[in-house]
Amino acid sequence: MNKPAPKKVRTAISPVRGDNFAEWYQSVVTAADLAETSPVRGCMIIKPWGYGIWERIQRELDDKIRETGHENCYFPLFIPLSFIAREAEHVEGFAKEMAVVTHHRLVMQDGKLVPDPTAKLEEPLIVRPTSETIIGDAFKRWIHSYRDLPVLVNQWANVVRWEMRTRLFLRTAEFLWQEGHTAHATEAEAMEETMRMLEVYRVLAEDVLAMPVTVGEKPDNERFPGAEKTFSIEAMMQDGKALQAGTSHYLGTHFARAQEIQYQDAGGELAYAHTTSWGVSTRLIGGVIMTHGDDDGLRVPPRIAPHQVVIVPLARDGNEQELFAYADGLAGELRAKGVRVHVDKKDAKPVDKRWNWVKRGAPVICEIGGREAAEGAVSFIRRDELRDGDKIRSTKMPAAEFAGTCLPLLGSIQARLFADAKARADANMLTGIRSFGDISDYFTSKGDDDSTVTGWVRVPWCKPRQSSSAAVLDEIAERLKALKITIRNAPLDQKLPRGAKCVFTGEKAVEEVIIGRAY
Amino acid sequence: MNKPAPKKVRTAISPVRGDNFAEWYQSVVTAADLAETSPVRGCMIIKPWGYGIWERIQRELDDKIRETGHENCYFPLFIPLSFIAREAEHVEGFAKEMAVVTHHRLVMQDGKLVPDPTAKLEEPLIVRPTSETIIGDAFKRWIHSYRDLPVLVNQWANVVRWEMRTRLFLRTAEFLWQEGHTAHATEAEAMEETMRMLEVYRVLAEDVLAMPVTVGEKPDNERFPGAEKTFSIEAMMQDGKALQAGTSHYLGTHFARAQEIQYQDAGGELAYAHTTSWGVSTRLIGGVIMTHGDDDGLRVPPRIAPHQVVIVPLARDGNEQELFAYADGLAGELRAKGVRVHVDKKDAKPVDKRWNWVKRGAPVICEIGGREAAEGAVSFIRRDELRDGDKIRSTKMPAAEFAGTCLPLLGSIQARLFADAKARADANMLTGIRSFGDISDYFTSKGDDDSTVTGWVRVPWCKPRQSSSAAVLDEIAERLKALKITIRNAPLDQKLPRGAKCVFTGEKAVEEVIIGRAY
Repeated sequence: MNKPAPKKVRTAISPVRGDNFAEWYQSVVTAADLAETSPVRGCMIIKPWGYGIWERIQRELDDKIRETGHENCYFPLFIPLSFIAREAEHVEGFAKEMAVVTHHRLVMQDGKLVPDPTAKLEEPLIVRPTSETIIGDAFKRWIHSYRDLPVLVNQWANVVRWEMRTRLFLRTAEFLWQEGHTAHATEAEAMEETMRMLEVYRVLAEDVLAMPVTVGEKPDNERFPGAEKTFSIEAMMQDGKALQAGTSHYLGTHFARAQEIQYQDAGGELAYAHTTSWGVSTRLIGGVIMTHGDDDGLRVPPRIAPHQVVIVPLARDGNEQELFAYADGLAGELRAKGVRVHVDKKDAKPVDKRWNWVKRGAPVICEIGGREAAEGAVSFIRRDELRDGDKIRSTKMPAAEFAGTCLPLLGSIQARLFADAKARADANMLTGIRSFGDISDYFTSKGDDDSTVTGWVRVPWCKPRQSSSAAVLDEIAERLKALKITIRNAPLDQKLPRGAKCVFTGEKAVEEVIIGRAY
Repeated sequence: MNKPAPKKVRTAISPVRGDNFAEWYQSVVTAADLAETSPVRGCMIIKPWGYGIWERIQRELDDKIRETGHENCYFPLFIPLSFIAREAEHVEGFAKEMAVVTHHRLVMQDGKLVPDPTAKLEEPLIVRPTSETIIGDAFKRWIHSYRDLPVLVNQWANVVRWEMRTRLFLRTAEFLWQEGHTAHATEAEAMEETMRMLEVYRVLAEDVLAMPVTVGEKPDNERFPGAEKTFSIEAMMQDGKALQAGTSHYLGTHFARAQEIQYQDAGGELAYAHTTSWGVSTRLIGGVIMTHGDDDGLRVPPRIAPHQVVIVPLARDGNEQELFAYADGLAGELRAKGVRVHVDKKDAKPVDKRWNWVKRGAPVICEIGGREAAEGAVSFIRRDELRDGDKIRSTKMPAAEFAGTCLPLLGSIQARLFADAKARADANMLTGIRSFGDISDYFTSKGDDDSTVTGWVRVPWCKPRQSSSAAVLDEIAERLKALKITIRNAPLDQKLPRGAKCVFTGEKAVEEVIIGRAY
């Protein structure tokens, strides 16, 4: 085309983020071929590129879970109904949204396949929404003496929570996760564990997913059902909303009492164990999309990219074999340095292959034509620096130089993605607010259209507890709910100004909390 | 003790294999701390040592699945009832033993938690017993043209088949497995895939699990429900029974017709895809136990041992730190060579620790006392050569020599376990039988006590097909059933003598089959 480029660059994804963030998200999931909806309400199919990212996350996190002394186990998918019933708060929190197995056989009746009325279970089974109760039951059998403590286990599993409104990765009826469960002799040890795993999650989010997070404690009304304290990592998405990306719970002796997890201490006295649980899920992939995606698709941080470098041979008539050989040679050199490389030999147009990898977000895309092969060179695109105005930015260098600098290049892409996200999150964190009216103004000033970017506010409050001042807490939650916002957490890293007053009650403030819209 | 050792050596496991194989099996599962029953009927808890073995198997197999061009995905846990109903044979095979989800909420009624009658699902959901139907539904959406073929996917997942009589690892209601599913343009390509994965399973069983197998095709009456051809690897356990350790199915166009998986061929005509599926499960761990376990517990082949070398410091008053430092140094050297090492620093008696690792079957157990530390030496036990009469066989050598020869040592343990199992399987394969009476004599001569060792017979037969000579096949199956035996498979490696007659019908034999008792 000889016409001058239009002002607005044509991007690979539409709508763009600024026009409709929710639709942009769905488009990226599709364009990057990460997942799709299935015929089973709320359950997703995770496709190879999405699952490959999950496998990288698993590998990285699993190593950290082991290094901190935990062992992997596997517990049953089903939980007897009576187990769920034992812990009152837990029932309240989960009973409303669970898949219930009532029969164990089908039978043909009047030419139709139906649950066999003669095969009704005596006690219904619940498909685990989380495994505190069934694992607690095992802890009861495993733990007798203080010498058996701590017990430190983890499992990688699927769980089901019946959700009415679902969104791929962010909220699905079935999702994949890891759930750690531990038992300790004392509160101090259990709290230490709770904070240790919270820190593991921070490192996973920031160093591996390049996703900056705010680490802190949830207010009482946002605790896990049955927990004493719940801590979370919260990430700010590009639309300013918060994504709770991981949680770590100190469960006190609640589950130990419900499941009778007791041990004999050194003095011979029976005592309840203190337990913890902590988990992250495939939701993290939603976080990666909304942190790093742009209007051309996904950008996958190198540490979790199934392929860190994709080589696309630009074959023309006759030179395909030569280019494949050159590409394979380069791939071999890169692999020897520990880079995950893929040579795309699919029978498709090179330009389509390039855009496919741009949309999937491979960190580095190499294009190898006859000229590169002849010169012993590589032309490559950094996915994080895709465009230069209306052009695609491509760099050519000798293949040996590329191979020699590829690992640092991947490191700098990883760092760049984190730095960009961190700068954005910092820029959209409003501090200095001292009244509820200011909060209200901030979250209503841009209308309540979900697609407008509104960040978070960080405000002082009086930290009312569910136990002693439930009415105050409920009232605050209601006022926030009217604005469609919630308290995300109270950052561990507190900067409470001297003499600060609670923005809700005017009383003396106890800590600062982060408030925002959330997924 | 100064008394002479009793004739019968006291072993760590009781009963011993020769006394009661089934009880011995349960004892090993417990003594090696591999798994335990859970309060959920038929569902097991896989404990760290058992799950660690599974993770090693997964890692080894996953690599092979990728190398053969497959990609991992994840499909829903639930399958709509109507999907199962579409393929008649599949219904017949699975409908009898499935967990059926009928409600999606619980509610408190008269102080009791029950499935909420207002939250009944319009269509019941089945917890997947296998995923041909739900994956076929995705294939239907993914496949349009011959250019989309082949589709080669795999998933690691839990599945549920409601079993009445369960045994840890061997037959459980919920189990873990991988299931590969592929779609191809032609029968030839699908058959090639079926056989490729069968060979992958053989290599996994023999080279990784050190478990010799007979590779062959199942007779028609033992096919997977809905398959055109089913192939299996069958392993002979130490009691002579067969364990079907993996299957690979050519599904023809059965599922493609039921799920409407069609593609446009190069000539523009619509055609049904040919599909395959193949899987192995946590049952393999049962196979490892019954192939390699002895009267002192499990013996884990080095390639799947979570710890290949365990170092037990024999600490006495005061020298614990010194011994730990020495053990850590040795562990570091071994790890640098790629050996998986564990230093057991638990607060327990050294002799208990030793026997714990003997029972768990760590391939090499090093015992390090003050003398070893002073001399720079290592005393070690090979788990595959544990005893020398009534003594434990221990070898002492300089630490540097041990570190230098550890990898070959592990290799020789792996080879030894395979060779022993192979020799035993070969010795218990009876050939030369030419009549049904001989089969009957062989399987009844030792009584029908399950614990007597009876091997397999390899006999010629006329291969009646379900389609054309179903009555003949059914009658043969009945005659075998009366002896509690089944045809395991027709080995790919055929040695049918010229002019051989079918042992069942006296007609001209078509192939040889293996017959035995089975798990």
